Amino acid sequence: MALSDLNTVERNEAGIAAVLGLLKQRFGERFQTGQAIREQHAHTTTYIPVQAPDGVVFAENTPEVQEIVRTCAQHRVPVIAFGTGTSLEGAVNAPGGGISLDTSRMNRIVEVNPQDLDCTVEPGVTRHQLNDYLRDTGLFFPIDPGANASLGGMAATRASGTNAVRYGTMRDNVLSLTAVMADGKLVTTGKRARKSSAGYDLTRLLVGSEGTLGIITSLTLRLSGIPQAISGGVCPFPSVEQACEAVIATIQMGVPVARIELVNALQMRAMINYSKLDYPESPCLFLEFHGSDASVTEQAQSFGEIAAEFGGGQFIWTTVAEERNKLWKARHDAYWASLTLRPGSRGLSTDVCVPISRLAECIAETESDIAEMGLIAPIVGHVGDGNFHTLVLMEDGDRKDIELAEEFVARLNARALRMEGTCTGEHGIGQGKIGFIEGEIGVAGVDVMRAIKATLDPDNILNPGKIWPMRHG
Amino acid sequence: MALSDLNTVERNEAGIAAVLGLLKQRFGERFQTGQAIREQHAHTTTYIPVQAPDGVVFAENTPEVQEIVRTCAQHRVPVIAFGTGTSLEGAVNAPGGGISLDTSRMNRIVEVNPQDLDCTVEPGVTRHQLNDYLRDTGLFFPIDPGANASLGGMAATRASGTNAVRYGTMRDNVLSLTAVMADGKLVTTGKRARKSSAGYDLTRLLVGSEGTLGIITSLTLRLSGIPQAISGGVCPFPSVEQACEAVIATIQMGVPVARIELVNALQMRAMINYSKLDYPESPCLFLEFHGSDASVTEQAQSFGEIAAEFGGGQFIWTTVAEERNKLWKARHDAYWASLTLRPGSRGLSTDVCVPISRLAECIAETESDIAEMGLIAPIVGHVGDGNFHTLVLMEDGDRKDIELAEEFVARLNARALRMEGTCTGEHGIGQGKIGFIEGEIGVAGVDVMRAIKATLDPDNILNPGKIWPMRHG
Repeated sequence: MALSDLNTVERNEAGIAAVLGLLKQRFGERFQTGQAIREQHAHTTTYIPVQAPDGVVFAENTPEVQEIVRTCAQHRVPVIAFGTGTSLEGAVNAPGGGISLDTSRMNRIVEVNPQDLDCTVEPGVTRHQLNDYLRDTGLFFPIDPGANASLGGMAATRASGTNAVRYGTMRDNVLSLTAVMADGKLVTTGKRARKSSAGYDLTRLLVGSEGTLGIITSLTLRLSGIPQAISGGVCPFPSVEQACEAVIATIQMGVPVARIELVNALQMRAMINYSKLDYPESPCLFLEFHGSDASVTEQAQSFGEIAAEFGGGQFIWTTVAEERNKLWKARHDAYWASLTLRPGSRGLSTDVCVPISRLAECIAETESDIAEMGLIAPIVGHVGDGNFHTLVLMEDGDRKDIELAEEFVARLNARALRMEGTCTGEHGIGQGKIGFIEGEIGVAGVDVMRAIKATLDPDNILNPGKIWPMRHG
Repeated sequence: MALSDLNTVERNEAGIAAVLGLLKQRFGERFQTGQAIREQHAHTTTYIPVQAPDGVVFAENTPEVQEIVRTCAQHRVPVIAFGTGTSLEGAVNAPGGGISLDTSRMNRIVEVNPQDLDCTVEPGVTRHQLNDYLRDTGLFFPIDPGANASLGGMAATRASGTNAVRYGTMRDNVLSLTAVMADGKLVTTGKRARKSSAGYDLTRLLVGSEGTLGIITSLTLRLSGIPQAISGGVCPFPSVEQACEAVIATIQMGVPVARIELVNALQMRAMINYSKLDYPESPCLFLEFHGSDASVTEQAQSFGEIAAEFGGGQFIWTTVAEERNKLWKARHDAYWASLTLRPGSRGLSTDVCVPISRLAECIAETESDIAEMGLIAPIVGHVGDGNFHTLVLMEDGDRKDIELAEEFVARLNARALRMEGTCTGEHGIGQGKIGFIEGEIGVAGVDVMRAIKATLDPDNILNPGKIWPMRHG
């Protein structure tokens, strides 16, 4: 995680100058080089320094993406796909400069096939835009990473969020896609069948590739039916351990929870103050159940019984939408609530994910670390998957705070790997976790990634400097 | 599908001779070159001619697999992973000779983690073996391709089966794996986290790669809880169209069916005679529901109401295990029942999968084709996914029958692609469908597969001649 681990990418000044001229000529006002817009396209929510591209081009369709990539390829200039810029790991930074390819104007919903529960969209469509559009069809797209991210960016990051325990991640919900490769060719990874055994799984190769193998220009997504009924509620526990034990029992019993989110005591304190909640300042699970009227009641009751077995307090749940929405608004505002714990700070979000049998232990050790290091760092987690986030509050730009946070993150990631987990459940590697991927996948595995990258993008123009440490010489 | 489409792979006689000597010396009785055993290792259930390897080696652990691959690599000799030989598309044939690497002795269940709902197994473990082993844990592995295949082979083929509509395919149920690559190096694709965004999805790259990128030596699999209750039954329909409409409505309503299988009228006739069933000779849906006692009753009732809306006859269902088992035994014996429609014949199983909105049309056109061409070819389908199999009955080795079947399959696959589907939902490309993959994925996409293969296996030793047409010159 140390900043010194970030890859350097050499600037190709002559190539960049040539491409700036060509794109200006071709795209006019749709090509921008002002400092503010360039920095905005490299801005991320971490403390990683902004590395701005040299220009930003707003593509409007696939042939334009092909043209831009070909222009950059000809001059060996980096091209970095950009959706909404909500990456948490410096994924849109431009360490060697180059062109940010902004896909926000490629925001058409191309088709919806209600009978097949699928749709095809351009990459700049955001998840809110899609769900607003779908409302009348009785369908929805369940992946919810918190931010109103673009679907192209979510696919590139293999994003997930609160619903993943029930509906899976972007890995599971992209049926096929098209992408412009480094040579400008357009690849289609499949058709609309729900499953296929036709050759290598190019869809899954591109999902999670963080813009380093191709630029996604359309996605065919799997949709789900809006459940007939939803129930949800909150249950306090005396300890994180007991909450985690209740989670394990719930999953093992096969209760098909749609969401099961852990909030630790410090995070609850922040949320109670920020969102005016009437709950105790103890670890809580936030739950949601989807199904028929009878089924969501049965699920909530089953969970209530399990919670009681593991020392849980009263499980207060409801099927009334307004009450549920208030709860989930509080959960979604957890980030903002956290910041009030240290006014003026910004947060670094960690992202480990471990087998759920190790979750309680992992969180307990992490809380000890936080106390020992004197950090302010509340915890929320998609605990049905074993994934949790610690928000380390830092004074912006404070060197000592950054060093402490780096030390904390290094320990946390090592802990997750030791417990057979991952350093990133859903945020991606980007720049921020480059130092951890070889420890997780092993050098032989990362070398396979490098080999695939080298053969598909021999000049290393697609989002260079990300995912793994570069080999110099 | 024409046999003339099969790739030829040049034999490296000197290399093969050298490797035969080395393996005999090293593995003794565990290396076999008798004709019967060699042919048995290339035998598949299609009409594709047997292309036997030059020798069969029985590996017992990962270091041995590495040693065998390194020996073959050094002499540029093909090595073809073998599980149970239940491939339907000539996947284990050896068109350029070489070594069949039999994994059946690598059949240890390494660990089961009940709290995490996962297990780690060697590739030669079969699905029945695993499920027998798991019985006391309350867990099961849901992927059911019919045959008692090895889990390594199922992963390599991206297999699925009757439960996929609820539990997904091998794509969704392999958490991570280890594989020996063409250079003999061992790659681990991940740890045991339920989800991860750590770099390229090497797990999904290897799942479905048909032994052409690496030889799988262990798999960490996702398990499911054995449901508290199961209900199941059969519902007749006046037509395939009406049955398909009922399927679409069931999926759209969000009824979480565990199995929803279509059997057409001809197939029902064969099953009624073979398994002594008391049902009408009309298209039927076979269903199964998993959940709590209340939920499986509710699901069955919901389906009954939907079926009635679409002209379905009485939906007879039960939660009694013996009655359900009789039904599913009949469904699983469909292959044997079919063969009685043309005594002495063997069957060629097709495998298209289309968006379910096109399923009725696709089956109707296929039934017309069958009638027009004078074939005997009953149909069964995993219709919740849009996947169906036609079993074309042929006299073994009859030239005219083969030509007719090839013509039928070519039309069927073209029809599926026209309807935005795939030529293979779950059987893989192997040799049998090499002629269709470029039509499905496009040449640019298949070229990406070729590039990945060329960089990871530059001497083309891992299962050569499969998946796509080779480029000569």
